[in-house]
This record gives sequence, C-alpha cells and structure tokens, in this order.
Amino acid sequence: MTAEKILVAQGGGPTAVINQSLVGVVLEARRHASVQRVYGARHGVRGIVNEDFVDLTQETSHNLELVAQTPSSALGSTRDKPDAKYCHEIFKVLQAHGITHFFYIGGNDSSDTVRIVAEEAAAANYGLRCIHIPKTIDNDLVENDHTPGFPSAARFVAQAFAGANLDNAALPGVYLGVVMGRHAGFLTAASALGKKFADDGPHLIYLPERVFELERFLADVKTMHERHGRCVIAVSEGIHDAAGTPILSRLAGDLERDAHGNVQLSGTGALADLLCEEIKNKLGIKRVRGDTFGYLQRSFIGCVSDVDQREAREVGEKAVQFAFHGDRDGSVAIKRRGFYSVDYELLPLAAVAGKTRVMEDEFITPEGTDVTDAFRMYLRPLLGSGMPDAFRLRPNRVAKVLKR
Amino acid sequence: MTAEKILVAQGGGPTAVINQSLVGVVLEARRHASVQRVYGARHGVRGIVNEDFVDLTQETSHNLELVAQTPSSALGSTRDKPDAKYCHEIFKVLQAHGITHFFYIGGNDSSDTVRIVAEEAAAANYGLRCIHIPKTIDNDLVENDHTPGFPSAARFVAQAFAGANLDNAALPGVYLGVVMGRHAGFLTAASALGKKFADDGPHLIYLPERVFELERFLADVKTMHERHGRCVIAVSEGIHDAAGTPILSRLAGDLERDAHGNVQLSGTGALADLLCEEIKNKLGIKRVRGDTFGYLQRSFIGCVSDVDQREAREVGEKAVQFAFHGDRDGSVAIKRRGFYSVDYELLPLAAVAGKTRVMEDEFITPEGTDVTDAFRMYLRPLLGSGMPDAFRLRPNRVAKVLKR
Repeated sequence: MTAEKILVAQGGGPTAVINQSLVGVVLEARRHASVQRVYGARHGVRGIVNEDFVDLTQETSHNLELVAQTPSSALGSTRDKPDAKYCHEIFKVLQAHGITHFFYIGGNDSSDTVRIVAEEAAAANYGLRCIHIPKTIDNDLVENDHTPGFPSAARFVAQAFAGANLDNAALPGVYLGVVMGRHAGFLTAASALGKKFADDGPHLIYLPERVFELERFLADVKTMHERHGRCVIAVSEGIHDAAGTPILSRLAGDLERDAHGNVQLSGTGALADLLCEEIKNKLGIKRVRGDTFGYLQRSFIGCVSDVDQREAREVGEKAVQFAFHGDRDGSVAIKRRGFYSVDYELLPLAAVAGKTRVMEDEFITPEGTDVTDAFRMYLRPLLGSGMPDAFRLRPNRVAKVLKR
Repeated sequence: MTAEKILVAQGGGPTAVINQSLVGVVLEARRHASVQRVYGARHGVRGIVNEDFVDLTQETSHNLELVAQTPSSALGSTRDKPDAKYCHEIFKVLQAHGITHFFYIGGNDSSDTVRIVAEEAAAANYGLRCIHIPKTIDNDLVENDHTPGFPSAARFVAQAFAGANLDNAALPGVYLGVVMGRHAGFLTAASALGKKFADDGPHLIYLPERVFELERFLADVKTMHERHGRCVIAVSEGIHDAAGTPILSRLAGDLERDAHGNVQLSGTGALADLLCEEIKNKLGIKRVRGDTFGYLQRSFIGCVSDVDQREAREVGEKAVQFAFHGDRDGSVAIKRRGFYSVDYELLPLAAVAGKTRVMEDEFITPEGTDVTDAFRMYLRPLLGSGMPDAFRLRPNRVAKVLKR
C-alpha cells in the first residue's frame, strides 16, 4: 500500500454549503489508513501554482464539522480560469508534492480545469486520480439534477421574495428584485417558491432563457399593477435582447449617448435602477422600488437548506469513494431518484466540463413570465425543511357608517 | 360597564415583528368582557379616513398567532403623514364608529398623529383613550432603550455582513454594503455584530452621525485594503457632508454636471455604485463590489430575533393594559433593566412625538469609522438566541517544495 497524498481545493463563487463538500472529502479521506496527508490549496488553482497549502490532516474533526456549517469557501477561492499552460503549472506542483489524488470543488470552468490536469498527468504517465466535485448557485451543470449550493441560494431568493411580497402588499407599488444568473434562470425562477396565495408576488419573472423586450415588459407590469394594485417582479441579471445583448448595457448605453459623456453606470445596482426608471417614466407609477440581491443571495449566513447541506457533504464523501474504489477520473453528479431522494454517479469529465445547462422549456410558462408546476415540483424538495410560512388576516369587513 | 370599541392600525415601514404588536393588542383586548369589538384599520390612518375596517373580533386566536409570526404589516400600512385637517378626519370617523380606544403602531410620525388625534378628542370632550405603540427599524425613538423591529433588522444586517465578510475573504477585494437609516446609524452600526475574528470585516463603518468626507473615506479604504488585503465597508444611506447634503445627491450631482445632461441616478443602488466607482477610479483596486441591502433588511422572511418578537408582543399587550388600567394617553416605551431584561413605561405622547434619536457618542469610536464595545454590549442581547457563528480552518502551513 502506497502512501497517498490528497489535495483538495475550492474554485469559483462561494456558496452556503461548499465547505460541506470540502469536509466530506477531508473526513472521508482521513478514514483511509493509506492516506498520509490531506492538503488543502488556498484560493483554488492559484494556491496550487503558488504552493500555498495547509495540512488538513492536522485539523480537528470537531473544527472541521463547524467549518462545514460555515458558508463561503474556507480555503479561499479564485476567479482564475486556467489555460493549458496554467494547467501544466498545476500538474508540476502536484507532481513535486507527490499528490496522488486531486479533488476540485467548483462549477463547469473548474471541471474543465480538472479535465486538462488529468490529461497532463496521463501524458506524463503520472498516477493521479482527478475528481471534480460539483458546486454552483447557478445550477447550470449539465447531467446533474441540480448542483450543491443552488438549493440554499434558491431558498434565500424564495424567502426574500416572500418577504418583499408582504412588504409590497403593506405599502403597494412596484417592487423589482434582480437575481444572479447570467445564462441560467434557475435562481431567479426560485422566486416563485416564495408565493403562497394566488395573488402573491412575484407576479412577473424574467429569465435569461427568454428574449427580453422592454415594451412588452412595461405592458406586463401595467397589466399586473392594474390587476393587483401592486406588482412584484423578479428579474435575472442576465436578461438580454434578441441579439443576445444584455439589457443592462443597452439601457446604460442609451444613457451614455444621451449624456455625451463617460458616465460610469456599471455596478450591481444599475439594472434594477434603470428598469425602475423606465416603469416610473413610462407608466407613471409613483412608488417603484428596486433591489439587487447581490452577494447576500450566496453569502448570507443563516439561510441554508438542510437537503443542500446533506447533499453537499455527500458529493464530497462520494468523490473520495469513487476515487478509492473506482478506476477512473470523473465528475460527481447528482441524480434524482423518486420524490425525493438522490443518488450519485461518476460521469466522465468531458461530459460536464465547460458546458452550460439552462432551464428546461417545461419549467417556463408559454408567456415566458412565470414558472410551471413542474418547476415547483422540481425545486420544492431541494429547499429543505423549516421554510418560513406567511399568514394573513381574514377579511371580516366592517360596514361603513359615514360613507355608506 | 360601557361597551368598548377598540381600533388598532399600523403605520410606516413594515418590520419583522410589527404583527406581534398588533396581535398583542388584539388578544389582550379580547380578554376584556367589556370590549364589544376590536377593529383593525387597513393601511393605517388612510384606512381610518376611508372607514376601511376589518373586525378582528371574528378572527381566530390560532390564525392571529400565525399572523404574529409573519413579517410586514398584516393590516397594511401607509406613508401618509397626517396634518391637523387629516387628524380631524380621523377623529370624525372614530367618533362615528363609537371607538373608545385607539392604538397606533408606528414610529415618531405616528406618535405625532396619535398626539393630535388625542387633542381633537379632548377638545370635543369625547372619551377616547389614545396609545402609541413603538415600532421602527431605525431605532430612532427618543426615551426608548430601543424600538421593536430594530433588533430583527439589526440581526439581518449582522448576518449579512458576517456572510459578506466570509465571501470577501474567499475572493478578496473591496465589498461595500449600503444600509437603511437616513438620520440614525444604529442599523448600519449593527454590521459590527457580524464580526468574530479580529481581522473580520466590516473594517470601516460610515454613519450619518458623522460628517462624510470622500477623500478621508478613500484614504481609510486604502489603509484597510493594504492592511488586510481586502476591505469590507458598511455605509449608511444617510451619509452626508458637513453642510448636511446627502453624499448620494452630491456624487450624482457631480456626474450630472460632468455630463451636461439629465441622467437619472436616483434609485436604491446608486450610492453603492457611485462609491464603488470612486474606489475603482481613485485607488485602482480592481475587484470592488457594492450591494444595497434595500427592502430585504426589513422584510426578509425567516430572520428574526426572538427577543424582538417577545418585546413587540409585550408592547402591544402593555398598551392595552395601560389603556384599561391607567388614566391617561401616552406612548409605550421600552426601558432596559439589567443585562438583559426590559420593562415598559407609558410616556406622555409629547415626550416622543416627532423627535428623532441618533446614536449616542459613546457608541462611536473617536475616528468615527467603528463602534465601541459599549455599542456591542448594548446591541448583542437584542439580537436574540441562535445567531449563526462562523468558523475557520487553522493555518497548518505545508512547506513549499518548488519555491522554497
């Protein structure tokens, strides 16, 4: 039995449960007598090329369990997207440290990194087992029922809209919330899970899977505002026109041309503000408020799905089991079994790497501004237990005395 | 024993616990055999002048308890700030419906409304007991240790910054979060309660109680960014220059003059975006992200302080007890006793009405960019039980092989 050395790293945007996967890897690897060291690379692939490692063999199980419950990437992350040369550097460092097993927790860019590193190792005839562990709040990995991190972010978005809807009902007007997700609308669509009563918001949902037309948007808002006396809207940051141009740059571009100047409008609040201005100016509605959920939706501490926690832990554990009991590299994928249970499979890296899933057509209504019951059935079990519920007073009207 | 008729209403911005106060009034009033009816006015004072009442005598205790746990104003709210004429209309309606007890849950504007209505009733020699019940996330009512609604909003802000700090540590750069509170900085200051380790953010806090100077702000950010390799900043929406001009209108104004146009920059995300632009342009820091917490901080469902819930319920109950066992109108106030317990007093309406509390000097450090331990001691018990906690991996560094 050879002395095995594990390296684990975290890449891309942090999630509420990415540390569950990290700890799943570490604790499962430490169970193996043949494992000499479990290293963690700080700040993802950048930490690998910089040889910035911590020894997780010397961390207590107790603290690891506490870290598992802490959101964001405990090892640090990176936005570096390695090219072939960068991957070669990664491989040289793994080789120098005698790493035998490489686990990388991340999205589809990260899986592509794992794929290239695995190819480097094979070409050099160096024995390295490479496993990609899925993670992304965007839920845009192909071949996965869903990805760890998405359910907790979806829960935040659903709770945020459930609350915003109550606020908007108390002080009527238009409320617009911009949600993360440049290409996939899953997280924006999760806003629909905040609805309970038929007239609850969000009354309109705009997804990057559909073309956004400003005139139709304004007409939709007008209709809903007249119907309900108020309107709650969920908008994906990735909405775009028929040519694929993001609406933000189109609207901001117009303003720049109007002003003949270099007004800087880039920034996270701009899309919400610009759409609110359109509603105010074109529809003459006075109370129009826009929020951009920004980093809260992926980092807020204390809003997590227990199902997401459990599955994020399991993909980490399974990654180690696939690595030690299997005979090939791959990407761990979540497959749904029944309503509701999951199982895990090891897919070839090429099946996942660099591909982007978007929302299936069956999840979006024909008008394109709402989700279907199929989507609600899909998402609800992921949100986990203890979802807060909203209650209303019943309308026992009192007869008027003065103005009958 | 005369047949008594209660009217209760909710005014101003909704909070996470304002329905606790409503239900506190209703259930306590319904215990009295002399109480014939408990009415609720929909959408605050506007619902009163419109005679838009619901009969809460016909609501089940069970549903009332569920509504109590639901955020936002279940009766609906209003931004109307009644003048003397409006208050006269209110009084006429109360008189027409034979209302004997008027309870209004709201901030300092609402307490002023109660004061004027009480004067109208006295002038007309009409027997009306008027009680103001405190509520505001701004925590800006004088003579109150704190106000119901503030602790839950403060908890949201603390949790948001605890998470944003972890996110910023994983992907370093500058993160800036804009928090509600035009005149009082309590809610922005609550961001400090998200800190655990000495180098955690927020590293800088900007409050409306201190003059904001852009040059000093940039110098502060530069210093912190150099010290920690990153910087998390909490900014109150109400920051202003020495002349009292809000920074948002100053920065937006500059841009308008530069552009010789009518660029619309009003909107909730603008201040964060503008400050981020300044940091990017003047300090040359690349990764700068700004969030505006917006309505989430007061409406998010599922983030509540149990201490706040309890106290909000009690101010409602106490209001009815003061009304039935006392002999004067007034405003219910929270007084702190020991560490930590509270008691309730009935203050004269004029002692609270229309006045604004800001943060005490002892709560702000001499540099003006952080809070003191006195503030932490003040706020911590209000946040309640079960605050999420963040944990870190310990730094067991691995020796470098290639780059020693």
